[in-house]
Amino acid sequence: MSSNPSTPGKSFAQTNGAELLVATAVDLGLDICFANPGTTEMPLVAALDAVPGVRPVLGLFEGVCAGAADGYGRIAGRPAMTLLHLGPGLGNAVANLHNAHRAYTPIVNLVGDHASWHVGFDAALTSDIGSLARPVSRWVRSAKTASGLGDDLVAAHWAAIAGRGPATLIIPADLQSSPLDRAAAPEVRPAGGWSVRGRAAASDVSVAAAAAAIRQARKPIVILLGATALDAKGQDAAWRLSVAFGATLYCETFPAVVERGSTLPELDRLPYFPETAIAALADAEVVLLAGAKEPVAYFGYEGVPSLLAPPGSVVPLAGPTEDASAALVALADLLGAGPAALPARPHLTMPADEPLSGANAGRVIAALVPEGAIVSIEGGTCGYPFFTASAAAAPHTVLTNTGGAIGQGIPAALGAAIAAPHRPVLALQSDGSAQYTLQSLWTIARERCDITVLIAANHSYNVLRTELDRHGTTDPGPAAQALTDLGNPRIDWLALARGYGVDGVRVHTTAQLAAALTDTLRAGGPHLIEMVL
Amino acid sequence: MSSNPSTPGKSFAQTNGAELLVATAVDLGLDICFANPGTTEMPLVAALDAVPGVRPVLGLFEGVCAGAADGYGRIAGRPAMTLLHLGPGLGNAVANLHNAHRAYTPIVNLVGDHASWHVGFDAALTSDIGSLARPVSRWVRSAKTASGLGDDLVAAHWAAIAGRGPATLIIPADLQSSPLDRAAAPEVRPAGGWSVRGRAAASDVSVAAAAAAIRQARKPIVILLGATALDAKGQDAAWRLSVAFGATLYCETFPAVVERGSTLPELDRLPYFPETAIAALADAEVVLLAGAKEPVAYFGYEGVPSLLAPPGSVVPLAGPTEDASAALVALADLLGAGPAALPARPHLTMPADEPLSGANAGRVIAALVPEGAIVSIEGGTCGYPFFTASAAAAPHTVLTNTGGAIGQGIPAALGAAIAAPHRPVLALQSDGSAQYTLQSLWTIARERCDITVLIAANHSYNVLRTELDRHGTTDPGPAAQALTDLGNPRIDWLALARGYGVDGVRVHTTAQLAAALTDTLRAGGPHLIEMVL
Repeated sequence: MSSNPSTPGKSFAQTNGAELLVATAVDLGLDICFANPGTTEMPLVAALDAVPGVRPVLGLFEGVCAGAADGYGRIAGRPAMTLLHLGPGLGNAVANLHNAHRAYTPIVNLVGDHASWHVGFDAALTSDIGSLARPVSRWVRSAKTASGLGDDLVAAHWAAIAGRGPATLIIPADLQSSPLDRAAAPEVRPAGGWSVRGRAAASDVSVAAAAAAIRQARKPIVILLGATALDAKGQDAAWRLSVAFGATLYCETFPAVVERGSTLPELDRLPYFPETAIAALADAEVVLLAGAKEPVAYFGYEGVPSLLAPPGSVVPLAGPTEDASAALVALADLLGAGPAALPARPHLTMPADEPLSGANAGRVIAALVPEGAIVSIEGGTCGYPFFTASAAAAPHTVLTNTGGAIGQGIPAALGAAIAAPHRPVLALQSDGSAQYTLQSLWTIARERCDITVLIAANHSYNVLRTELDRHGTTDPGPAAQALTDLGNPRIDWLALARGYGVDGVRVHTTAQLAAALTDTLRAGGPHLIEMVL
Repeated sequence: MSSNPSTPGKSFAQTNGAELLVATAVDLGLDICFANPGTTEMPLVAALDAVPGVRPVLGLFEGVCAGAADGYGRIAGRPAMTLLHLGPGLGNAVANLHNAHRAYTPIVNLVGDHASWHVGFDAALTSDIGSLARPVSRWVRSAKTASGLGDDLVAAHWAAIAGRGPATLIIPADLQSSPLDRAAAPEVRPAGGWSVRGRAAASDVSVAAAAAAIRQARKPIVILLGATALDAKGQDAAWRLSVAFGATLYCETFPAVVERGSTLPELDRLPYFPETAIAALADAEVVLLAGAKEPVAYFGYEGVPSLLAPPGSVVPLAGPTEDASAALVALADLLGAGPAALPARPHLTMPADEPLSGANAGRVIAALVPEGAIVSIEGGTCGYPFFTASAAAAPHTVLTNTGGAIGQGIPAALGAAIAAPHRPVLALQSDGSAQYTLQSLWTIARERCDITVLIAANHSYNVLRTELDRHGTTDPGPAAQALTDLGNPRIDWLALARGYGVDGVRVHTTAQLAAALTDTLRAGGPHLIEMVL
């Protein structure tokens, strides 16, 4: 929803398809565009000036744009646009569009194409854009007329919101620059305005069936929370059920958005490795899915089942595109699970001053996270310890890498900061994954975002060392070492940050980290802290 | 072709599919693997240690790996392997695989997938890998059995060489780790060994038809050289035809590999903008295609034809996957065009000391390029002036960005340096495009490649300013300025280089550039020069 309730698009006399599209975007409240355009998108770029109301945010790489749109959509609850250049530009965005797709984040993904009359000549940059888009899009359309671009954008916007994911609109350059054969923008705004979340309600049948299953259960109940179930209301309802029925609560392993902190129930994530997750769920008679999909192993390991919940235990209450929070409230009400106080929780204490590890770094950050902060977590080294500790922290919002394509954390922080400019943002980031979209730092500096990037610098792909070990390679040879070691040469994170215009500081101990983070939070603006582990 | 003529793969008792694949790779001479693996590729990583003979080269981002494989294939004339992690890893490589596809560079592109029994559970990292691969691959196969992985690799290798492009083999993790049900590797080596280039000869009919067209022509003849026609023999034969028949020679606009320098004919590139290219070809009765495709406009512009050669003028001699060099020699012989001396060419002189511009920087670099160097060019600012000046330079080899997906120049330089470790490599690189795959610098430092990266730092997407101007936006508004300006904040290229372990120097004048480049060429190893324009 645009903050401006008028319909500026309609008062503007659009002269071409690009201007019609931008005017329609303004009317839809699509007021942010994370862009890395090229020649075939120049009419759209010009239209951003001709039709005011959309803020362009430049990324130096398309993965930055897609990841920022993902972070934006998660925090704003409504889509941003991206603007990408042909098939290769889309290719560069595939990883973070995949993440948005898996996180059910609405994105209106605009991709320019050659002029429709030119595409058949197979010029150098021609490729099958649709084939690249489909695996990471809920909806794909190639525009056919200039005058239809308004309707196309309305359809893409609707598909992104209703389908909860990236909707890709491919726009040939000639349609952008072609004059319109009718003057008016489409009638886009429904009488009641746009629903902010646009999630469907879970069915009464699901709620009733879940209530029956819980009432009848003789063995433990687990509630697995995902999507909107992880907002404050959803967690409160889950806590009421937990107290009333002894249910164990888990957060899905990689939630898109989860509210955290001392005013909310203590919520573990379902463990990452399948053996541990299977053990955690083994005794459950009911595994209630509230916004989460049925849990499956992240990777397949020989001899370990892919399905993590005991056979027959899964009871779906609400899917990830439904309003799982409301469904949990309805379920708790139906079951008469009344208000329940949270147990007193030990106050977070700062660890003693000692050399940094992933574990104590997570505790330091949890102790300092300001109320209202957004924390984008990518990578396990500090991510898991922080998440555990942060249950007792000041109330804050956590984003994780739901889709698993690395290079998501820093751009998601960027998008979150654009969506919520008055909230401090932390990016808690492993070093290996930071390298995939590090150009995000430049946009963070350019847009003066209030983001502190915390790099967990262990100079290795530690997760792969673990996986090699699981594979039986306990003593990696030179090839395996070469492919998991990031220490030769040792990446200088402060130099990289400075290169992109971001001030940085390197810390070795918990006290140094606490001092540095206190400073950056007080100062505001873009900073990077290299945590030497 | 491996430098080792024995068949080490066969003497090794492979225990699983991954080891069979690596042993087969060794036997095929696939001895380089540009890799960014993840969990689903760990058995292949372990196999690189179990079966010696393949050198793994780690990239911090998959676009680095694909671009390096492109540069490697162009210089080595045979494929490298890549190793990528699932759909998102492949997505990150799409742009540079697109470039390799357009440059007809053979690459054996290995992509891991979930275990075949796990993929149906739709875990987070599941996606349609084939849909992502097809637009940038000549050949795509998903492996079905562990014991078939050797045959699969042979087929991929053959497809890459015969089809001249990336061949993508998708390898489920369980096949990598599964024991074999037969012990022997496939019989891969043909009796006569592998052809280094593997290009088909052009047909005698094409040569005879081209000869007839040239004999009958009453108006100017243009020979458009591409692919192998741009090697020394091809250029010599083209020059003989030029002298005998007054033919004008053009190099295709973005050649994959072209030999350059004072021992070769002066060869302009066909102009980039279609109006200029159409004017250059307008008078031709014959436009002979020697390794080049029929020239088409890079982008479509309203009112400008897509086809650049006059109607009816195009005469195909040899396509880009054929041996165009041999076809030109056969044509020159058939037409009795005898040896022809090159005209004396003015010696290259160093420009006077003055502030750097794209034009004078190109001349300085051309004056200093060492004999035998490889120059990877991406971007026009210095690239065009260098190419023009370098016709009179010491003999060297030029690579350009054939496919147009930016972020190709530095990784291609990396791959070229791995292919030819005793040749100095220059990467002549515009700043905007350098940002897409800048992580290449780290691998260049790690592998101690003899590469000088020359950044043309004009701090803008200059090409887009030109395109906006062509679009009629001569006075860009704030959005258009924001989306084409890279100066806020100003990127510190030396800091970025230092961050990745590469020494750098900043130069402002032609004399400073000449001194710095002389130094880096003398010292060898990885360096970066920021040319402030």
